[in-house]
Amino acid sequence: MEHISNLVKAQVLNDALPYIQRYHDKVVVVKYGGNAMTSPELKDAVMSDIVLLSLVGIRVVLVHGGGPEISEMLKRVGIESRFVGGLRYTDAETAEIVRMVLAGKVNKELVSLLEQAGGTALGLCGSDGRMISVKKMESSEDLGFVGEITDVSVKPIADALEKGYIPVVATIATDEAGQVYNINADTAAARIAAALGAENLILMTDIKGLLADKNDESTLIPEVNVSDVPFLKKQGIISGGMIPKIDCCVEAVRRGVSKTCIIDGRLAHSILIEILSNEGVGTLFH
Amino acid sequence: MEHISNLVKAQVLNDALPYIQRYHDKVVVVKYGGNAMTSPELKDAVMSDIVLLSLVGIRVVLVHGGGPEISEMLKRVGIESRFVGGLRYTDAETAEIVRMVLAGKVNKELVSLLEQAGGTALGLCGSDGRMISVKKMESSEDLGFVGEITDVSVKPIADALEKGYIPVVATIATDEAGQVYNINADTAAARIAAALGAENLILMTDIKGLLADKNDESTLIPEVNVSDVPFLKKQGIISGGMIPKIDCCVEAVRRGVSKTCIIDGRLAHSILIEILSNEGVGTLFH
Amino acid sequence: MEHISNLVKAQVLNDALPYIQRYHDKVVVVKYGGNAMTSPELKDAVMSDIVLLSLVGIRVVLVHGGGPEISEMLKRVGIESRFVGGLRYTDAETAEIVRMVLAGKVNKELVSLLEQAGGTALGLCGSDGRMISVKKMESSEDLGFVGEITDVSVKPIADALEKGYIPVVATIATDEAGQVYNINADTAAARIAAALGAENLILMTDIKGLLADKNDESTLIPEVNVSDVPFLKKQGIISGGMIPKIDCCVEAVRRGVSKTCIIDGRLAHSILIEILSNEGVGTLFH
Amino acid sequence: MEHISNLVKAQVLNDALPYIQRYHDKVVVVKYGGNAMTSPELKDAVMSDIVLLSLVGIRVVLVHGGGPEISEMLKRVGIESRFVGGLRYTDAETAEIVRMVLAGKVNKELVSLLEQAGGTALGLCGSDGRMISVKKMESSEDLGFVGEITDVSVKPIADALEKGYIPVVATIATDEAGQVYNINADTAAARIAAALGAENLILMTDIKGLLADKNDESTLIPEVNVSDVPFLKKQGIISGGMIPKIDCCVEAVRRGVSKTCIIDGRLAHSILIEILSNEGVGTLFH
Amino acid sequence: MEHISNLVKAQVLNDALPYIQRYHDKVVVVKYGGNAMTSPELKDAVMSDIVLLSLVGIRVVLVHGGGPEISEMLKRVGIESRFVGGLRYTDAETAEIVRMVLAGKVNKELVSLLEQAGGTALGLCGSDGRMISVKKMESSEDLGFVGEITDVSVKPIADALEKGYIPVVATIATDEAGQVYNINADTAAARIAAALGAENLILMTDIKGLLADKNDESTLIPEVNVSDVPFLKKQGIISGGMIPKIDCCVEAVRRGVSKTCIIDGRLAHSILIEILSNEGVGTLFH
Amino acid sequence: MEHISNLVKAQVLNDALPYIQRYHDKVVVVKYGGNAMTSPELKDAVMSDIVLLSLVGIRVVLVHGGGPEISEMLKRVGIESRFVGGLRYTDAETAEIVRMVLAGKVNKELVSLLEQAGGTALGLCGSDGRMISVKKMESSEDLGFVGEITDVSVKPIADALEKGYIPVVATIATDEAGQVYNINADTAAARIAAALGAENLILMTDIKGLLADKNDESTLIPEVNVSDVPFLKKQGIISGGMIPKIDCCVEAVRRGVSKTCIIDGRLAHSILIEILSNEGVGTLFH
Repeated sequence: MEHISNLVKAQVLNDALPYIQRYHDKVVVVKYGGNAMTSPELKDAVMSDIVLLSLVGIRVVLVHGGGPEISEMLKRVGIESRFVGGLRYTDAETAEIVRMVLAGKVNKELVSLLEQAGGTALGLCGSDGRMISVKKMESSEDLGFVGEITDVSVKPIADALEKGYIPVVATIATDEAGQVYNINADTAAARIAAALGAENLILMTDIKGLLADKNDESTLIPEVNVSDVPFLKKQGIISGGMIPKIDCCVEAVRRGVSKTCIIDGRLAHSILIEILSNEGVGTLFH
Repeated sequence: MEHISNLVKAQVLNDALPYIQRYHDKVVVVKYGGNAMTSPELKDAVMSDIVLLSLVGIRVVLVHGGGPEISEMLKRVGIESRFVGGLRYTDAETAEIVRMVLAGKVNKELVSLLEQAGGTALGLCGSDGRMISVKKMESSEDLGFVGEITDVSVKPIADALEKGYIPVVATIATDEAGQVYNINADTAAARIAAALGAENLILMTDIKGLLADKNDESTLIPEVNVSDVPFLKKQGIISGGMIPKIDCCVEAVRRGVSKTCIIDGRLAHSILIEILSNEGVGTLFH
Repeated sequence: MEHISNLVKAQVLNDALPYIQRYHDKVVVVKYGGNAMTSPELKDAVMSDIVLLSLVGIRVVLVHGGGPEISEMLKRVGIESRFVGGLRYTDAETAEIVRMVLAGKVNKELVSLLEQAGGTALGLCGSDGRMISVKKMESSEDLGFVGEITDVSVKPIADALEKGYIPVVATIATDEAGQVYNINADTAAARIAAALGAENLILMTDIKGLLADKNDESTLIPEVNVSDVPFLKKQGIISGGMIPKIDCCVEAVRRGVSKTCIIDGRLAHSILIEILSNEGVGTLFH
Repeated sequence: MEHISNLVKAQVLNDALPYIQRYHDKVVVVKYGGNAMTSPELKDAVMSDIVLLSLVGIRVVLVHGGGPEISEMLKRVGIESRFVGGLRYTDAETAEIVRMVLAGKVNKELVSLLEQAGGTALGLCGSDGRMISVKKMESSEDLGFVGEITDVSVKPIADALEKGYIPVVATIATDEAGQVYNINADTAAARIAAALGAENLILMTDIKGLLADKNDESTLIPEVNVSDVPFLKKQGIISGGMIPKIDCCVEAVRRGVSKTCIIDGRLAHSILIEILSNEGVGTLFH
Repeated sequence: MEHISNLVKAQVLNDALPYIQRYHDKVVVVKYGGNAMTSPELKDAVMSDIVLLSLVGIRVVLVHGGGPEISEMLKRVGIESRFVGGLRYTDAETAEIVRMVLAGKVNKELVSLLEQAGGTALGLCGSDGRMISVKKMESSEDLGFVGEITDVSVKPIADALEKGYIPVVATIATDEAGQVYNINADTAAARIAAALGAENLILMTDIKGLLADKNDESTLIPEVNVSDVPFLKKQGIISGGMIPKIDCCVEAVRRGVSKTCIIDGRLAHSILIEILSNEGVGTLFH
Repeated sequence: MEHISNLVKAQVLNDALPYIQRYHDKVVVVKYGGNAMTSPELKDAVMSDIVLLSLVGIRVVLVHGGGPEISEMLKRVGIESRFVGGLRYTDAETAEIVRMVLAGKVNKELVSLLEQAGGTALGLCGSDGRMISVKKMESSEDLGFVGEITDVSVKPIADALEKGYIPVVATIATDEAGQVYNINADTAAARIAAALGAENLILMTDIKGLLADKNDESTLIPEVNVSDVPFLKKQGIISGGMIPKIDCCVEAVRRGVSKTCIIDGRLAHSILIEILSNEGVGTLFH
């Protein structure tokens, strides 16, 4: 890595000052996923970003799913996925596997990585301290045990933050009868951010942000007012897989999260740049 | 279930009074395992016992392993176990599966069951908050990633108790490089009990307790002074699978746990009877 | 006393769980009186009930009068009681004797008994910490220094509960000039329960509860909605000495106490059965 | 009362400054008794002194006996006192009367008087919160239920001080079986002062202080070093009823109370003058 | 100084009791100035008054200007004052000198004097902890850097009081660009008193109070209702230099300060007499 | 200023992580002086460095002298300095001027500058809260009111840190009689750092550090063990004006400050580089 002069170092740190001030004691929820979760280098960068932010006084909450690891384990135990209208049907056995992989593998691995980076982390899932209340999602076709969040109790996360831990949240939950439900991680992150009164919700993705022309990264739209989202959908600028992600952003903003952004998780340290500089690295919804 | 008169009810509750007083605000560590963990009825009884004890002011910590569930999952993903001197060799892949099953399945299921019984629980493993420090266990033959506890930091458990949760601890941990280790759950429970200054460590087993004549349950030895253990071993009264369990009891007592007992987990509510009555249901080491 | 099997013990304790949960950290005010206060066996049972409830996390306040002991002392010091419309006239000298007996004999004896049963108690009267403000009761005929409560400051009781004591309250008070007033203990208990936002007010009496036919104990009315009280009075079901007691219940419910009940103090452990089981032992007003 | 000029007022207040500083947040135990307890004017002066001291940040504890009121009540209920070697024999019935008068009459009257003077007081006796542990006093001849203090737990007094009350302590206590014992109030005050780490113990008496010539008030000895007490006894300067009082002073100083003094309770506001000026009004033991 | 008998001492202290009660834990803001600030004897008296009031539980804040010392220093460094409509024009250099004298000389000298009198003080100016926000005062003719208070943040004063210091406030402040402004000390005291919810604002002056006839001190008006001020101005009773002082009083009362008074700082201990007696020593506005 | 890429920014911030962790919640005392205090650009850099360090969780205390400003003011008011053995004699008048300039000009200006940079600061001098106790320095020839520190009470600084302020300390103090003393700022910083148990004491100077050859900046000695100082003095490497500065470093290390360094205040952001990188910018004493 190139040598950086002391002057440049000082300048960078100095430039970060107003951003550290702005976010001091504020809650930032990071929805972690995509490439940033599969590439070991990016993973390390995310972990050290989060530890750094938490050290400079920002209260970071890491929310994660774990699609690829779930698919791999389902395959390994020989569960074949049935698809309903393009979505995977979650039977009881699948739901158990999802919980096991999310809460027992991905979550604990992240806790361990954050601690290797110098942080102190605490792994949680939706059942811990009755954090996430859930019911069967209503949909035209039965999707099995896919959960819809009915309530978020932030006490377990707030307790962990107060006691100095970085909370790492696996997005599964159980209903009152103990049935496990899989929950969409973007939605869970949005609801948690709203319930915590977060200053910022950051969704890590594998794209540069919202593009005016999907095929041209130079057409990045840096900021969107949520009231313009319906128009952008009609125009087809928001389309396909972007729709649910951006609906999450809109919901988070509507529920009181000041700023929500989709950032490019393929860039190392994109979280740090997003929070501590004036150069956004994706699209901001407000 | 038979009808119990009000007078009997009152008498029972009244008889429990001095025991509730004795254990008030004290820590009791329960190592959960065996039949009590596989039979649904016994499971429910254990859960309601623990919630009840925690409600009457006793600070209960539940420590668990998960042998059968691990074996089942290893079989399911086609990992064949290699045995070294009668003990299962734990390679890196196995260690990952163990973590996933313990921290993601057994642990979260227990959290959920405790909450169905009316408690508020928090699932933890040895990595959370750097609770358990671990190194490779030294042995004559290499056992793979079987961990030996080098240190126990009780902060995560103490924080959970202070905030009103029942801590549920899965006995796996990671070293500083992130390598997962499997830890013997009895040993972990003994070390955690000692580190917490627990009043009582209860090991749930599938036997009536220590028997003078292994084949005659009427020969139960209700109390053992730890200084008599070497003699009982020489006599063959403590033998076979009992040796490591009783060594745990001895170590816990030596490290300052006032009372350690092996109780019969095959009896419903044996924890409640052990704690809240003058009739022990197993063998007490002091 | 009959031998009770471990299974029955466990079942009883287990059955108590939901009730302990329901009352956890809630305030229960017990107005103590009648036979339960004169029979030594019943007295012991009440004391251990209260200590047990306080140990399982219920915040119990004991409010007491002391009719028989007052009469005895008045007789002993040769004060003859003058009656006005059936009620005893309380002159200044009588008021002094009442205070002395209630605050110096009955109250301190109860404190001592609770401590013999393993609790830690604190005796209070209406003057301590200016708890009860009082003025001369208005009535058609002068009753002397019979007080009407004008205000209840719960600070002394709340302080005692916070510091871990079982507050025992003698129902006498002084006005701003230092004049002692006797206060009806049922009314004081109702006002204290209301001021504390109590979950439950229990009035101990020497009857089974409200009976549809006064002469037939099998006609117990287990629950009464306070809005039905006028009708029950008109029907003569509520009559005589029951009227002021039930008026207290109605006032307590109206001032926000969730549940108020009249229980049979002649049964040992009736408080425990009332609170910790689904079998009421008297009549509940709600 | 004579008119006092503003200048004089200011001078007096100003002169009190260093004394208020010296006693700030310190504990002062006042043993109240004698004329100061029987004359209404002196009583009022004591009450306002104590409220004033407590307002300027001194933590005052009032300990009292109640000899004359006890004698009067015993006479009234027709109990004749038997004397053993000049001391009154306390049978069980007498002990009950003593408790009733001290805790129910004198104590509550003092609470009420302090509140009329603008303070907030809390009446306590030795049983409240298990404050005073007691056993039968050993003596050559049986004195009945005269108690010897075995332990003082200051928690109830400290809790009351912390919550802003002026604690008023009646010196009776019960043993573990509930038997009431009468305790010498001077001794109790000395032990309470020692247990609280008091700065000052003030014993109010009906004499000017220790006199070199008993018949000449101008021979007041203003200060005595406790090591000189044996010599003063031998000389006959400390004699008769002074002996037990001064023994209390000596014990209090030996147990760590910085200053103990015998003051003339017949002078109005003698407490105030003792604490807030450089003119002692009795004899100081150190 | 004349000898004062113990009886008189006790009477004075006793008479102060209700005033100490009234002001207990209340905030009193004293604007210090005039003769009381130049005469060493009066200075000492003010310091001991403030330490005494703070010891008896009143939370005193001392606010000061420093006219004569500023003039002297300006003269000494050769800055000649330009006058605009009778008011001194404050250029940047003058503003710097004012700050230096107020915050570095007068303020620290007062801190030191309070500590010599036995208090613990903390010197503050408007910049410390961003206490006073300020902008250029608008006026028909430019007065230079004379500041108008736009906001008062009481955190630094409240922090100092909470930690047990007597806050001493120099009335200068800086705007966001760091420009120093001189602020009228009477106005600052009024605003600080209002922001703290003070019970009392005391302005020390060199007159006896508001006089009906300016030339006759026997015509002191002891109390004024602020609604009568316009009428008194029209009558010429409030005139000249009194106008701004009394406008401060009116504003403080309007902003919620219960009582505001102008007292005669030429009398020793006038603060003590004002607070702790029923003889006002000036004019009270309410 | 050159454009810095996001990657470089992220790298710099990331590299700072372990240093932020190491200093988290630790106290760093910065003795501010020399060019860094006279050049406006350097001043701004120091202020933003300190605000940044305090935001990332380091508890920074700024200690300052003010030589040039004092000389200027003395000259301005016409006080001619008398020199004794090369040191300025401080008469009473000079001491007053020193206090005024340090506590009223330099100190408050620094408070204001830190607040312009986004911090919240609190100006203190040695008299505030009786922080620095002082006596006349003993020396062969009388130096006037030059003070020697006899004790440092860190309560005022600790209170300020706890309440979230950056404490700025002017190094003057008063003795018990109110006499002002000038104190050497390096010594005061060393004593304050020791009393606070600081992790680091940084002395800002106008040299590169300790040079093996005074005339060659490339001969910087980066680290010195304090036990080698006597040898370095003998060799002449530590000589002249360096001697007192390095004696301060030695004393601070001896009194328990982990690391003490002399850094080059002529470089912008030298504090930041010293604390948050592995490139020291001066000489470290340990």
